[in-house]
Amino acid sequence: MLKLFTWPTQNARKISIMLEECNLDYEIHAINIEKDEQHQASFKALNPNCKIPVLLDTDLTDDSGNVEAIFETGAILIYLAEKSGQFLSHDPALRIRTLKWLFWQTSGLGPNLGNFSHYASALAKDEKQLNNFLAKTRAKDPNMQAIERFRKESMRLLAVLNNGLKDNDYIAGELSIADFACYPWIESAWQGLKMFDPELPVKFKSIHNWKTRLAQRPGLKLGMEKLAWGVEI
Amino acid sequence: MLKLFTWPTQNARKISIMLEECNLDYEIHAINIEKDEQHQASFKALNPNCKIPVLLDTDLTDDSGNVEAIFETGAILIYLAEKSGQFLSHDPALRIRTLKWLFWQTSGLGPNLGNFSHYASALAKDEKQLNNFLAKTRAKDPNMQAIERFRKESMRLLAVLNNGLKDNDYIAGELSIADFACYPWIESAWQGLKMFDPELPVKFKSIHNWKTRLAQRPGLKLGMEKLAWGVEI
Repeated sequence: MLKLFTWPTQNARKISIMLEECNLDYEIHAINIEKDEQHQASFKALNPNCKIPVLLDTDLTDDSGNVEAIFETGAILIYLAEKSGQFLSHDPALRIRTLKWLFWQTSGLGPNLGNFSHYASALAKDEKQLNNFLAKTRAKDPNMQAIERFRKESMRLLAVLNNGLKDNDYIAGELSIADFACYPWIESAWQGLKMFDPELPVKFKSIHNWKTRLAQRPGLKLGMEKLAWGVEI
Repeated sequence: MLKLFTWPTQNARKISIMLEECNLDYEIHAINIEKDEQHQASFKALNPNCKIPVLLDTDLTDDSGNVEAIFETGAILIYLAEKSGQFLSHDPALRIRTLKWLFWQTSGLGPNLGNFSHYASALAKDEKQLNNFLAKTRAKDPNMQAIERFRKESMRLLAVLNNGLKDNDYIAGELSIADFACYPWIESAWQGLKMFDPELPVKFKSIHNWKTRLAQRPGLKLGMEKLAWGVEI
């Protein structure tokens, strides 16, 4: 029995996508982070780092018979790939190619898009302030420096991905957990980044095509919908 | 044959520690990031993301006979653990426990300590400015907000780790790649964070003891020394 403790976020969608793509049965348990439920003792016992999502597989127990709760989306994706035998190649070179791009997402793309969004979200709601930013304040206000730092790094990382997708339909060559890790973050950041650079879909045409290709998959679509913003879970 | 393309940094030390602990033979190839060599075409061909370290194992080739260069320290650690059969348990529950803490380091602790250090390094060199910060400017200057954000999150993550180490000698129960991933980052950040909170070693006593325990290991010590700040490689 698989139990997923979760809430609609980009990180959470990686796992609902994977579960749907693998066609695995699972129960969703809502942890409402808007009500701070991730800090309750019962959830903290599953993840001392107090972040969703967490996966419980009642089949996975340690020597003392305790179920080992799995946190960190990268670890959950590897676990589900190995459990289902899907989306992580058994070929040694392809397997490590998938893992390196998975870590690239969890350590680089995710934190940078997250930090960019943290600093930019207030700005994006205020068109006048945004135009002001784009026109002249970029270098002067130190808070702008934080946005600029994470915007530039996010754009650099997207350029790396776009370049890799020029000759490949999927990030690690064949469809894998690396694609599922990147998709919800890019899908969510796309509109925000477009406000800063309207040429984004042209500049990153290979990412745009990859996004379109993935969006047509029934499993991925269902995984995204299950944890869409504002959905009742 | 293992070839390590690297330069003295916290991330790089994770891999030199692992190689020394596994007692594997390897050649070091210096990529001087102070001279921007990570952006040269020859290195970019190994890692399109232009970051050290990269590991080449001439045994690891894809279907076309090309050697698969491994980037991202998390992927390199898993690769070396599986190659050597060390520091990543074969027991399913212990294995996933190690992986989840490995991802916790690469996606959380590393990026946050790195961002904290980015914003704090100038401040730390100027005692007057630092005292000013500690006394009163914390909330007012927006650039302080960026330091504060990453300092607070770094301290939160260290508290999570400290708590986990209260009943365990090592992060995932037994010594693993999760310890090697965390050690060089914590060792490096310790002094910087102590300037902001002199009580650090008392507050995080379990981390302090874990650091001391690891520092006594000849392999770890050699791995740290090989890529110490300013060393000729």
